[in-house]
Amino acid sequence: MTVLVFIDSDFPAGRIADANQPQLFATDLGATRGDGIFESLLAVENKPKKIQAHLDRLASSATLLELEIPTAEQWRAAIDTALAEFDQPEAVVKLLVTRGVEGAKQATAWVQVSPLPALGKQQRERGLTVILLDRGYDSEVALRAPWLLLGAKTLSYAVNMAALRYAQQHGADDVIFTSADGRVLEGPTSSVLIAKVSEENGSQLKRLITPQLDSGILPGTTQGALFAAAQRAGWQLGYGPLEPKHLYEADAAWLISSVRLLAPINSIDGQQIGEDTQRAELTAELSAILASTE
Amino acid sequence: MTVLVFIDSDFPAGRIADANQPQLFATDLGATRGDGIFESLLAVENKPKKIQAHLDRLASSATLLELEIPTAEQWRAAIDTALAEFDQPEAVVKLLVTRGVEGAKQATAWVQVSPLPALGKQQRERGLTVILLDRGYDSEVALRAPWLLLGAKTLSYAVNMAALRYAQQHGADDVIFTSADGRVLEGPTSSVLIAKVSEENGSQLKRLITPQLDSGILPGTTQGALFAAAQRAGWQLGYGPLEPKHLYEADAAWLISSVRLLAPINSIDGQQIGEDTQRAELTAELSAILASTE
Repeated sequence: MTVLVFIDSDFPAGRIADANQPQLFATDLGATRGDGIFESLLAVENKPKKIQAHLDRLASSATLLELEIPTAEQWRAAIDTALAEFDQPEAVVKLLVTRGVEGAKQATAWVQVSPLPALGKQQRERGLTVILLDRGYDSEVALRAPWLLLGAKTLSYAVNMAALRYAQQHGADDVIFTSADGRVLEGPTSSVLIAKVSEENGSQLKRLITPQLDSGILPGTTQGALFAAAQRAGWQLGYGPLEPKHLYEADAAWLISSVRLLAPINSIDGQQIGEDTQRAELTAELSAILASTE
Repeated sequence: MTVLVFIDSDFPAGRIADANQPQLFATDLGATRGDGIFESLLAVENKPKKIQAHLDRLASSATLLELEIPTAEQWRAAIDTALAEFDQPEAVVKLLVTRGVEGAKQATAWVQVSPLPALGKQQRERGLTVILLDRGYDSEVALRAPWLLLGAKTLSYAVNMAALRYAQQHGADDVIFTSADGRVLEGPTSSVLIAKVSEENGSQLKRLITPQLDSGILPGTTQGALFAAAQRAGWQLGYGPLEPKHLYEADAAWLISSVRLLAPINSIDGQQIGEDTQRAELTAELSAILASTE
Protein backbone atom coordinates (compact mmCIF):
# COMPACT_ATOMS: atom_id res chain seq x y z
CA MET A 1 0.00 0.00 0.00
CA THR A 2 1.26 3.45 -0.92
CA VAL A 3 -0.33 6.73 0.18
CA LEU A 4 0.02 9.86 -1.96
CA VAL A 5 -0.75 13.38 -0.78
CA PHE A 6 -0.30 16.20 -3.27
CA ILE A 7 0.40 19.73 -2.11
CA ASP A 8 -2.42 21.78 -3.53
CA SER A 9 -3.42 25.31 -2.54
CA ASP A 10 -7.09 24.25 -2.56
CA PHE A 11 -6.38 21.65 0.16
CA PRO A 12 -4.58 23.13 3.20
CA ALA A 13 -3.86 19.67 4.65
CA GLY A 14 -2.86 18.26 1.25
CA ARG A 15 -4.90 16.39 -1.35
CA ILE A 16 -4.99 12.60 -0.92
CA ALA A 17 -4.68 10.84 -4.29
CA ASP A 18 -5.08 7.22 -5.33
CA ALA A 19 -1.64 5.65 -5.91
CA ASN A 20 -3.27 2.97 -8.07
CA GLN A 21 -4.31 5.59 -10.62
CA PRO A 22 -2.05 7.76 -12.80
CA GLN A 23 -1.45 11.06 -10.99
CA LEU A 24 1.34 12.74 -12.98
CA PHE A 25 1.14 14.39 -16.38
CA ALA A 26 3.34 12.74 -19.02
CA THR A 27 4.78 16.19 -19.80
CA ASP A 28 5.90 16.79 -16.20
CA LEU A 29 9.56 17.81 -16.30
CA GLY A 30 10.19 15.45 -13.41
CA ALA A 31 9.37 12.55 -15.70
CA THR A 32 10.88 13.88 -18.94
CA ARG A 33 14.05 15.57 -17.57
CA GLY A 34 14.56 14.24 -14.03
CA ASP A 35 14.22 17.95 -13.19
CA GLY A 36 13.29 18.04 -9.54
CA ILE A 37 14.41 17.17 -6.01
CA PHE A 38 13.46 14.79 -3.24
CA GLU A 39 14.00 13.61 0.31
CA SER A 40 13.47 10.17 1.87
CA LEU A 41 12.93 9.82 5.58
CA LEU A 42 11.72 7.38 8.19
CA ALA A 43 8.53 7.74 10.24
CA VAL A 44 7.94 5.85 13.46
CA GLU A 45 4.49 5.75 15.04
CA ASN A 46 3.27 8.30 12.47
CA LYS A 47 6.02 10.77 13.45
CA PRO A 48 8.64 11.71 10.82
CA LYS A 49 12.26 11.54 12.04
CA LYS A 50 14.59 14.55 11.62
CA ILE A 51 11.90 16.38 9.72
CA GLN A 52 13.51 19.80 10.02
CA ALA A 53 16.87 18.52 8.72
CA HIS A 54 15.11 17.04 5.69
CA LEU A 55 13.08 20.19 5.04
CA ASP A 56 16.28 22.24 5.33
CA ARG A 57 18.11 20.03 2.84
CA LEU A 58 15.11 20.09 0.49
CA ALA A 59 15.19 23.90 0.63
CA SER A 60 18.92 23.88 -0.09
CA SER A 61 18.43 21.52 -3.07
CA ALA A 62 15.64 23.84 -4.30
CA THR A 63 18.01 26.82 -4.17
CA LEU A 64 20.62 24.98 -6.24
CA LEU A 65 17.98 24.06 -8.83
CA GLU A 66 16.19 27.44 -8.61
CA LEU A 67 12.89 25.74 -7.84
CA GLU A 68 10.09 27.37 -5.89
CA ILE A 69 8.81 24.78 -3.49
CA PRO A 70 5.98 24.61 -0.91
CA THR A 71 6.51 26.04 2.58
CA ALA A 72 7.64 23.93 5.54
CA GLU A 73 4.10 24.27 6.94
CA GLN A 74 2.58 22.86 3.75
CA TRP A 75 5.00 19.92 3.82
CA ARG A 76 4.36 19.20 7.49
CA ALA A 77 0.59 19.27 6.97
CA ALA A 78 0.79 16.97 3.93
CA ILE A 79 3.14 14.56 5.76
CA ASP A 80 0.77 14.40 8.73
CA THR A 81 -2.17 13.71 6.43
CA ALA A 82 -0.27 10.97 4.62
CA LEU A 83 0.98 9.31 7.81
CA ALA A 84 -2.49 9.36 9.40
CA GLU A 85 -3.86 7.71 6.26
CA PHE A 86 -1.04 5.09 6.15
CA ASP A 87 -1.10 4.51 9.93
CA GLN A 88 1.58 1.83 10.40
CA PRO A 89 4.28 1.52 13.12
CA GLU A 90 7.00 2.36 10.57
CA ALA A 91 6.95 4.00 7.16
CA VAL A 92 9.17 5.49 4.46
CA VAL A 93 8.17 9.07 3.68
CA LYS A 94 9.30 10.64 0.41
CA LEU A 95 8.97 14.33 -0.38
CA LEU A 96 9.13 15.04 -4.11
CA VAL A 97 9.09 18.24 -6.13
CA THR A 98 9.39 18.56 -9.90
CA ARG A 99 9.64 21.67 -12.07
CA GLY A 100 6.08 20.84 -13.10
CA VAL A 101 4.36 20.40 -16.41
CA GLU A 102 6.31 21.81 -19.36
CA GLY A 103 5.38 25.46 -19.85
CA ALA A 104 3.20 25.70 -16.72
CA LYS A 105 5.86 27.26 -14.46
CA GLN A 106 4.33 25.63 -11.37
CA ALA A 107 6.12 22.93 -9.40
CA THR A 108 4.45 19.57 -8.80
CA ALA A 109 4.92 18.54 -5.16
CA TRP A 110 3.77 15.48 -3.30
CA VAL A 111 4.37 13.22 -0.32
CA GLN A 112 4.58 9.46 -0.77
CA VAL A 113 4.31 7.11 2.20
CA SER A 114 5.06 3.41 1.73
CA PRO A 115 6.18 0.35 3.76
CA LEU A 116 9.81 -0.11 4.80
CA PRO A 117 11.69 -2.35 2.34
CA ALA A 118 12.67 -5.64 4.02
CA LEU A 119 16.17 -5.47 2.52
CA GLY A 120 17.29 -2.59 4.73
CA LYS A 121 16.85 -4.51 7.98
CA GLN A 122 18.58 -7.58 6.50
CA GLN A 123 21.56 -5.51 5.35
CA ARG A 124 21.81 -3.76 8.71
CA GLU A 125 21.93 -7.15 10.44
CA ARG A 126 24.24 -9.10 8.17
CA GLY A 127 26.43 -6.21 6.98
CA LEU A 128 27.35 -5.00 3.52
CA THR A 129 29.71 -6.12 0.79
CA VAL A 130 30.86 -2.93 -0.91
CA ILE A 131 32.86 -1.98 -4.00
CA LEU A 132 34.56 1.33 -4.77
CA LEU A 133 33.49 3.02 -8.00
CA ASP A 134 34.89 6.13 -9.64
CA ARG A 135 32.35 8.99 -9.60
CA GLY A 136 34.31 10.73 -12.38
CA TYR A 137 34.42 14.14 -10.69
CA ASP A 138 37.33 15.53 -8.73
CA SER A 139 36.61 16.56 -5.15
CA GLU A 140 36.81 20.30 -5.91
CA VAL A 141 34.50 20.53 -8.90
CA ALA A 142 31.40 21.26 -6.78
CA LEU A 143 32.84 24.61 -5.76
CA ARG A 144 33.81 25.76 -9.23
CA ALA A 145 30.86 24.28 -11.20
CA PRO A 146 27.50 24.91 -9.48
CA TRP A 147 25.64 23.79 -12.64
CA LEU A 148 26.68 20.20 -11.85
CA LEU A 149 24.22 20.38 -8.90
CA LEU A 150 26.54 18.43 -6.61
CA GLY A 151 25.12 18.76 -3.11
CA ALA A 152 21.54 18.84 -4.41
CA LYS A 153 19.41 15.73 -4.05
CA THR A 154 17.89 15.74 -7.52
CA LEU A 155 15.50 13.34 -9.23
CA SER A 156 18.26 12.67 -11.78
CA TYR A 157 19.40 9.48 -10.05
CA ALA A 158 20.00 7.26 -13.09
CA VAL A 159 23.77 7.08 -12.37
CA ASN A 160 23.20 6.23 -8.71
CA MET A 161 20.83 3.43 -9.76
CA ALA A 162 23.28 2.19 -12.43
CA ALA A 163 26.10 2.06 -9.86
CA LEU A 164 23.94 -0.09 -7.56
CA ARG A 165 23.07 -2.44 -10.44
CA TYR A 166 26.79 -2.66 -11.31
CA ALA A 167 27.57 -3.58 -7.69
CA GLN A 168 24.89 -6.28 -7.62
CA GLN A 169 26.19 -7.78 -10.85
CA HIS A 170 29.63 -7.95 -9.25
CA GLY A 171 28.39 -9.74 -6.13
CA ALA A 172 28.26 -6.63 -3.94
CA ASP A 173 25.42 -4.97 -2.04
CA ASP A 174 26.45 -1.37 -2.32
CA VAL A 175 28.94 1.19 -3.59
CA ILE A 176 31.26 3.86 -2.24
CA PHE A 177 32.02 6.49 -4.86
CA THR A 178 35.56 7.86 -5.07
CA SER A 179 36.60 11.10 -6.76
CA ALA A 180 38.89 11.37 -9.76
CA ASP A 181 41.58 12.65 -7.35
CA GLY A 182 41.29 9.60 -5.11
CA ARG A 183 39.04 10.80 -2.28
CA VAL A 184 36.27 8.83 -0.62
CA LEU A 185 32.94 10.52 -1.35
CA GLU A 186 29.62 8.81 -0.50
CA GLY A 187 27.36 5.92 -1.41
CA PRO A 188 24.72 6.28 -4.17
CA THR A 189 22.03 6.63 -1.47
CA SER A 190 24.05 6.97 1.77
CA SER A 191 26.91 8.69 3.59
CA VAL A 192 30.20 7.01 4.56
CA LEU A 193 31.40 6.79 8.18
CA ILE A 194 34.47 5.20 9.73
CA ALA A 195 35.51 4.62 13.35
CA LYS A 196 39.03 4.62 14.74
CA VAL A 197 39.56 3.37 18.28
CA SER A 198 42.86 3.96 20.15
CA GLU A 199 44.28 3.95 23.65
CA GLU A 200 45.68 7.20 25.01
CA ASN A 201 47.05 7.57 28.54
CA GLY A 202 45.22 4.42 29.55
CA SER A 203 41.78 5.55 28.35
CA GLN A 204 39.99 4.59 25.14
CA LEU A 205 39.66 7.27 22.48
CA LYS A 206 36.91 6.78 19.89
CA ARG A 207 36.79 8.81 16.74
CA LEU A 208 34.04 8.98 14.09
CA ILE A 209 35.06 10.35 10.69
CA THR A 210 33.10 11.22 7.54
CA PRO A 211 34.35 12.72 4.24
CA GLN A 212 34.59 16.51 4.20
CA LEU A 213 31.28 18.06 3.16
CA ASP A 214 32.74 20.43 0.55
CA SER A 215 33.90 17.57 -1.68
CA GLY A 216 30.70 17.53 -3.74
CA ILE A 217 28.74 15.12 -1.58
CA LEU A 218 25.28 15.37 -0.10
CA PRO A 219 25.28 16.43 3.54
CA GLY A 220 23.83 13.36 5.28
CA THR A 221 20.98 14.14 7.66
CA THR A 222 21.47 10.85 9.53
CA GLN A 223 25.25 11.29 9.63
CA GLY A 224 24.61 14.77 11.04
CA ALA A 225 22.21 13.51 13.72
CA LEU A 226 24.55 10.68 14.71
CA PHE A 227 27.58 12.98 14.87
CA ALA A 228 25.81 15.38 17.24
CA ALA A 229 24.64 12.56 19.50
CA ALA A 230 27.95 10.65 19.41
CA GLN A 231 29.82 13.79 20.43
CA ARG A 232 27.54 14.12 23.46
CA ALA A 233 28.38 10.48 24.25
CA GLY A 234 32.12 11.23 24.27
CA TRP A 235 33.14 10.43 20.69
CA GLN A 236 35.56 12.65 18.82
CA LEU A 237 34.49 13.79 15.35
CA GLY A 238 36.46 14.24 12.15
CA TYR A 239 35.65 15.47 8.64
CA GLY A 240 37.99 13.90 6.08
CA PRO A 241 39.63 14.13 3.71
CA LEU A 242 39.39 10.36 3.47
CA GLU A 243 41.15 8.12 0.97
CA PRO A 244 40.48 4.40 0.38
CA LYS A 245 43.43 3.48 2.63
CA HIS A 246 41.60 5.11 5.55
CA LEU A 247 38.65 2.80 4.92
CA TYR A 248 40.91 -0.26 4.93
CA GLU A 249 42.66 0.89 8.12
CA ALA A 250 39.40 1.67 9.97
CA ASP A 251 38.23 -0.32 12.97
CA ALA A 252 34.75 -0.23 11.44
CA ALA A 253 33.01 1.48 8.55
CA TRP A 254 29.35 2.06 7.74
CA LEU A 255 26.98 3.38 5.15
CA ILE A 256 24.41 5.51 6.91
CA SER A 257 21.09 6.83 5.59
CA SER A 258 17.63 7.82 6.77
CA VAL A 259 15.77 4.58 6.12
CA ARG A 260 18.39 1.80 6.28
CA LEU A 261 20.12 3.66 9.14
CA LEU A 262 23.58 2.42 10.18
CA ALA A 263 24.64 -0.52 7.98
CA PRO A 264 28.07 -2.00 8.81
CA ILE A 265 30.49 -2.71 5.97
CA ASN A 266 31.97 -6.21 6.13
CA SER A 267 34.31 -5.80 3.18
CA ILE A 268 35.33 -3.36 0.46
CA ASP A 269 36.63 -4.72 -2.84
CA GLY A 270 37.05 -8.10 -1.14
CA GLN A 271 39.11 -6.80 1.78
CA GLN A 272 37.62 -7.21 5.27
CA ILE A 273 37.13 -3.99 7.23
CA GLY A 274 38.04 -4.19 10.91
CA GLU A 275 37.44 -7.22 13.07
CA ASP A 276 34.04 -8.93 13.42
CA THR A 277 33.53 -8.61 17.17
CA GLN A 278 34.66 -5.01 17.42
CA ARG A 279 32.60 -4.06 14.35
CA ALA A 280 29.50 -5.62 15.95
CA GLU A 281 30.16 -3.83 19.25
CA LEU A 282 30.73 -0.45 17.65
CA THR A 283 27.66 -0.91 15.44
CA ALA A 284 25.51 -1.74 18.47
CA GLU A 285 26.87 1.25 20.40
CA LEU A 286 26.35 3.74 17.57
CA SER A 287 22.94 2.28 16.63
CA ALA A 288 21.79 2.83 20.21
CA ILE A 289 23.09 6.41 20.08
CA LEU A 290 21.30 6.95 16.76
CA ALA A 291 18.06 5.44 18.09
CA SER A 292 18.13 7.98 20.92
CA THR A 293 17.95 10.91 18.48
CA GLU A 294 14.73 12.62 17.41
CA MET B 1 -1.70 20.61 -28.34
CA THR B 2 0.23 17.50 -27.37
CA VAL B 3 -0.53 13.97 -28.51
CA LEU B 4 0.43 10.98 -26.35
CA VAL B 5 0.52 7.38 -27.54
CA PHE B 6 1.49 4.71 -25.02
CA ILE B 7 3.01 1.44 -26.13
CA ASP B 8 0.65 -1.20 -24.83
CA SER B 9 0.53 -4.87 -25.84
CA ASP B 10 -3.29 -4.66 -25.99
CA PHE B 11 -3.08 -1.94 -28.68
CA PRO B 12 -0.85 -2.96 -31.64
CA ALA B 13 -0.85 0.58 -33.07
CA GLY B 14 -0.36 2.16 -29.63
CA ARG B 15 -2.87 3.51 -27.14
CA ILE B 16 -3.79 7.18 -27.59
CA ALA B 17 -4.02 8.95 -24.22
CA ASP B 18 -5.28 12.39 -23.21
CA ALA B 19 -2.31 14.69 -22.51
CA ASN B 20 -4.60 16.92 -20.43
CA GLN B 21 -5.12 14.13 -17.90
CA PRO B 22 -2.52 12.52 -15.62
CA GLN B 23 -1.11 9.44 -17.38
CA LEU B 24 1.89 8.43 -15.27
CA PHE B 25 1.92 6.76 -11.87
CA ALA B 26 3.57 8.84 -9.15
CA THR B 27 5.71 5.80 -8.29
CA ASP B 28 7.10 5.50 -11.83
CA LEU B 29 10.89 5.32 -11.58
CA GLY B 30 11.09 7.79 -14.46
CA ALA B 31 9.55 10.43 -12.20
CA THR B 32 11.17 9.43 -8.90
CA ARG B 33 14.68 8.50 -10.12
CA GLY B 34 15.05 9.93 -13.64
CA ASP B 35 15.58 6.27 -14.48
CA GLY B 36 14.85 5.99 -18.17
CA ILE B 37 15.90 7.08 -21.64
CA PHE B 38 14.55 9.21 -24.47
CA GLU B 39 14.96 10.49 -28.01
CA SER B 40 13.75 13.74 -29.61
CA LEU B 41 13.29 13.98 -33.34
CA LEU B 42 11.68 16.07 -36.01
CA ALA B 43 8.76 15.02 -38.18
CA VAL B 44 7.89 16.75 -41.44
CA GLU B 45 4.56 16.07 -43.16
CA ASN B 46 3.85 13.30 -40.63
CA LYS B 47 7.11 11.52 -41.47
CA PRO B 48 9.76 11.19 -38.76
CA LYS B 49 13.31 12.16 -39.82
CA LYS B 50 16.26 9.76 -39.28
CA ILE B 51 13.94 7.36 -37.48
CA GLN B 52 16.30 4.39 -37.71
CA ALA B 53 19.23 6.39 -36.27
CA HIS B 54 17.05 7.43 -33.32
CA LEU B 55 15.75 3.89 -32.74
CA ASP B 56 19.35 2.62 -32.89
CA ARG B 57 20.51 5.18 -30.32
CA LEU B 58 17.52 4.43 -28.09
CA ALA B 59 18.46 0.74 -28.21
CA SER B 60 22.05 1.60 -27.34
CA SER B 61 20.91 3.76 -24.39
CA ALA B 62 18.67 0.88 -23.27
CA THR B 63 21.65 -1.50 -23.30
CA LEU B 64 23.69 0.87 -21.12
CA LEU B 65 20.80 1.17 -18.64
CA GLU B 66 19.82 -2.53 -18.94
CA LEU B 67 16.28 -1.61 -19.85
CA GLU B 68 14.00 -3.83 -21.90
CA ILE B 69 12.27 -1.59 -24.38
CA PRO B 70 9.59 -2.03 -27.07
CA THR B 71 10.58 -3.30 -30.51
CA ALA B 72 11.33 -0.99 -33.43
CA GLU B 73 8.03 -2.10 -34.99
CA GLN B 74 6.08 -1.08 -31.88
CA TRP B 75 7.78 2.33 -31.86
CA ARG B 76 7.16 2.90 -35.56
CA ALA B 77 3.48 1.98 -35.19
CA ALA B 78 3.02 4.26 -32.16
CA ILE B 79 4.84 7.14 -33.90
CA ASP B 80 2.63 6.78 -36.98
CA THR B 81 -0.49 6.76 -34.80
CA ALA B 82 0.65 9.86 -32.92
CA LEU B 83 1.65 11.78 -36.06
CA ALA B 84 -1.65 10.94 -37.80
CA GLU B 85 -3.49 12.25 -34.74
CA PHE B 86 -1.33 15.42 -34.53
CA ASP B 87 -1.38 16.01 -38.30
CA GLN B 88 0.66 19.22 -38.68
CA PRO B 89 3.33 20.12 -41.28
CA GLU B 90 6.05 19.91 -38.62
CA ALA B 91 6.23 18.29 -35.20
CA VAL B 92 8.61 17.33 -32.40
CA VAL B 93 8.42 13.62 -31.64
CA LYS B 94 9.73 12.33 -28.33
CA LEU B 95 10.20 8.66 -27.53
CA LEU B 96 10.34 7.99 -23.77
CA VAL B 97 10.96 4.84 -21.75
CA THR B 98 11.17 4.59 -17.98
CA ARG B 99 12.02 1.60 -15.78
CA GLY B 100 8.32 1.59 -14.91
CA VAL B 101 6.39 1.64 -11.67
CA GLU B 102 8.49 0.68 -8.64
CA GLY B 103 8.39 -3.09 -8.17
CA ALA B 104 6.44 -3.78 -11.38
CA LYS B 105 9.49 -4.71 -13.54
CA GLN B 106 7.76 -3.44 -16.67
CA ALA B 107 8.98 -0.42 -18.60
CA THR B 108 6.62 2.48 -19.27
CA ALA B 109 7.01 3.61 -22.89
CA TRP B 110 5.28 6.34 -24.83
CA VAL B 111 5.48 8.70 -27.79
CA GLN B 112 4.81 12.40 -27.34
CA VAL B 113 4.16 14.66 -30.34
CA SER B 114 4.04 18.41 -29.87
CA PRO B 115 4.52 21.65 -31.85
CA LEU B 116 8.00 22.96 -32.74
CA PRO B 117 9.22 25.55 -30.22
CA ALA B 118 9.50 28.98 -31.88
CA LEU B 119 12.88 29.60 -30.23
CA GLY B 120 14.72 27.03 -32.35
CA LYS B 121 13.99 28.82 -35.63
CA GLN B 122 14.92 32.20 -34.11
CA GLN B 123 18.24 30.86 -32.82
CA ARG B 124 19.01 29.21 -36.17
CA GLU B 125 18.46 32.54 -37.91
CA ARG B 126 20.18 34.97 -35.57
CA GLY B 127 22.90 32.63 -34.27
CA LEU B 128 23.93 31.66 -30.76
CA THR B 129 25.85 33.24 -27.93
CA VAL B 130 27.60 30.38 -26.17
CA ILE B 131 29.62 29.90 -22.98
CA LEU B 132 32.00 27.06 -22.12
CA LEU B 133 31.19 25.16 -18.93
CA ASP B 134 33.20 22.43 -17.22
CA ARG B 135 31.37 19.07 -17.34
CA GLY B 136 33.54 17.80 -14.49
CA TYR B 137 34.48 14.51 -16.14
CA ASP B 138 37.72 13.83 -17.96
CA SER B 139 37.40 12.67 -21.57
CA GLU B 140 38.43 9.07 -20.79
CA VAL B 141 36.09 8.33 -17.89
CA ALA B 142 33.32 6.92 -20.13
CA LEU B 143 35.53 4.00 -21.09
CA ARG B 144 36.57 3.06 -17.55
CA ALA B 145 33.29 3.84 -15.72
CA PRO B 146 30.24 2.48 -17.59
CA TRP B 147 28.03 3.13 -14.52
CA LEU B 148 28.27 6.87 -15.28
CA LEU B 149 26.05 6.16 -18.33
CA LEU B 150 27.97 8.59 -20.53
CA GLY B 151 26.81 7.98 -24.08
CA ALA B 152 23.28 7.08 -22.93
CA LYS B 153 20.51 9.64 -23.42
CA THR B 154 18.90 9.27 -20.00
CA LEU B 155 15.95 11.05 -18.41
CA SER B 156 18.39 12.32 -15.74
CA TYR B 157 18.84 15.68 -17.43
CA ALA B 158 18.81 17.98 -14.38
CA VAL B 159 22.46 18.99 -14.95
CA ASN B 160 21.87 19.72 -18.64
CA MET B 161 18.90 21.91 -17.70
CA ALA B 162 20.88 23.65 -14.94
CA ALA B 163 23.70 24.42 -17.39
CA LEU B 164 21.21 26.04 -19.78
CA ARG B 165 19.72 28.13 -16.95
CA TYR B 166 23.25 29.18 -15.94
CA ALA B 167 23.95 30.27 -19.53
CA GLN B 168 20.76 32.30 -19.73
CA GLN B 169 21.56 34.03 -16.45
CA HIS B 170 24.93 34.98 -17.90
CA GLY B 171 23.45 36.46 -21.08
CA ALA B 172 24.11 33.41 -23.27
CA ASP B 173 21.81 31.16 -25.28
CA ASP B 174 23.60 27.88 -24.93
CA VAL B 175 26.55 25.93 -23.54
CA ILE B 176 29.46 23.87 -24.78
CA PHE B 177 30.68 21.46 -22.12
CA THR B 178 34.42 20.91 -21.75
CA SER B 179 36.08 17.99 -20.00
CA ALA B 180 38.24 18.23 -16.89
CA ASP B 181 41.23 17.59 -19.19
CA GLY B 182 40.37 20.51 -21.46
CA ARG B 183 38.58 18.84 -24.36
CA VAL B 184 35.53 20.14 -26.16
CA LEU B 185 32.61 17.74 -25.56
CA GLU B 186 29.05 18.68 -26.56
CA GLY B 187 26.15 20.98 -25.77
CA PRO B 188 23.55 20.04 -23.13
CA THR B 189 21.13 19.11 -25.94
CA SER B 190 23.32 19.24 -29.06
CA SER B 191 26.56 18.19 -30.77
CA VAL B 192 29.42 20.57 -31.59
CA LEU B 193 30.71 21.08 -35.16
CA ILE B 194 33.41 23.32 -36.60
CA ALA B 195 34.45 24.14 -40.17
CA LYS B 196 37.94 24.93 -41.42
CA VAL B 197 38.32 26.28 -44.94
CA SER B 198 41.72 26.46 -46.65
CA GLU B 199 43.27 26.81 -50.09
CA GLU B 200 45.42 23.95 -51.36
CA ASN B 201 46.99 23.91 -54.85
CA GLY B 202 44.53 26.59 -55.93
CA SER B 203 41.40 24.72 -54.86
CA GLN B 204 39.31 25.22 -51.75
CA LEU B 205 39.49 22.52 -49.10
CA LYS B 206 36.56 22.36 -46.63
CA ARG B 207 36.77 20.33 -43.47
CA LEU B 208 34.02 19.56 -40.96
CA ILE B 209 35.19 18.45 -37.50
CA THR B 210 33.33 17.15 -34.44
CA PRO B 211 34.73 15.94 -31.08
CA GLN B 212 35.82 12.30 -31.01
CA LEU B 213 32.90 10.06 -30.11
CA ASP B 214 34.73 8.06 -27.41
CA SER B 215 35.13 11.10 -25.14
CA GLY B 216 31.92 10.41 -23.22
CA ILE B 217 29.57 12.33 -25.49
CA LEU B 218 26.32 11.32 -27.09
CA PRO B 219 26.70 10.28 -30.74
CA GLY B 220 24.69 12.96 -32.55
CA THR B 221 22.18 11.59 -35.04
CA THR B 222 22.01 14.90 -36.91
CA GLN B 223 25.78 15.32 -36.85
CA GLY B 224 26.01 11.78 -38.27
CA ALA B 225 23.49 12.49 -41.04
CA LEU B 226 25.17 15.79 -41.95
CA PHE B 227 28.65 14.21 -41.98
CA ALA B 228 27.57 11.48 -44.40
CA ALA B 229 25.89 13.98 -46.73
CA ALA B 230 28.69 16.56 -46.50
CA GLN B 231 31.26 13.93 -47.44
CA ARG B 232 29.23 13.10 -50.55
CA ALA B 233 29.27 16.86 -51.34
CA GLY B 234 33.08 16.95 -51.17
CA TRP B 235 33.75 17.97 -47.57
CA GLN B 236 36.52 16.33 -45.59
CA LEU B 237 35.59 14.99 -42.16
CA GLY B 238 37.47 14.97 -38.88
CA TYR B 239 36.80 13.59 -35.40
CA GLY B 240 38.61 15.65 -32.75
CA PRO B 241 40.17 15.75 -30.30
CA LEU B 242 39.09 19.38 -30.10
CA GLU B 243 40.17 21.96 -27.55
CA PRO B 244 38.66 25.41 -27.00
CA LYS B 245 41.45 26.98 -29.13
CA HIS B 246 40.15 25.00 -32.12
CA LEU B 247 36.72 26.58 -31.63
CA TYR B 248 38.25 30.07 -31.56
CA GLU B 249 40.35 29.36 -34.67
CA ALA B 250 37.43 27.87 -36.63
CA ASP B 251 35.97 29.56 -39.70
CA ALA B 252 32.55 28.69 -38.33
CA ALA B 253 31.09 26.61 -35.50
CA TRP B 254 27.63 25.22 -34.85
CA LEU B 255 25.50 23.40 -32.36
CA ILE B 256 23.55 20.75 -34.21
CA SER B 257 20.56 18.73 -33.02
CA SER B 258 17.47 16.99 -34.34
CA VAL B 259 14.90 19.71 -33.78
CA ARG B 260 16.84 23.02 -33.86
CA LEU B 261 19.06 21.60 -36.62
CA LEU B 262 22.18 23.61 -37.54
CA ALA B 263 22.47 26.69 -35.30
CA PRO B 264 25.52 28.90 -35.98
CA ILE B 265 27.59 30.13 -33.06
CA ASN B 266 28.25 33.87 -33.15
CA SER B 267 30.50 33.98 -30.11
CA ILE B 268 31.92 31.83 -27.35
CA ASP B 269 32.73 33.43 -23.99
CA GLY B 270 32.47 36.82 -25.69
CA GLN B 271 34.88 36.02 -28.51
CA GLN B 272 33.51 36.10 -32.06
CA ILE B 273 33.83 32.85 -34.02
CA GLY B 274 34.84 33.27 -37.68
CA GLU B 275 33.66 36.09 -39.89
CA ASP B 276 29.97 37.00 -40.38
CA THR B 277 29.71 36.60 -44.15
CA GLN B 278 31.63 33.35 -44.31
CA ARG B 279 29.70 31.95 -41.33
CA ALA B 280 26.42 32.77 -43.08
CA GLU B 281 27.59 31.19 -46.35
CA LEU B 282 28.83 28.01 -44.69
CA THR B 283 25.63 27.77 -42.61
CA ALA B 284 23.50 28.11 -45.75
CA GLU B 285 25.57 25.51 -47.62
CA LEU B 286 25.50 22.94 -44.79
CA SER B 287 21.81 23.60 -43.99
CA ALA B 288 20.97 22.82 -47.61
CA ILE B 289 23.02 19.63 -47.42
CA LEU B 290 21.26 18.66 -44.17
CA ALA B 291 17.83 19.43 -45.65
CA SER B 292 18.59 16.98 -48.47
CA THR B 293 18.96 14.08 -46.01
CA GLU B 294 16.16 11.68 -45.04
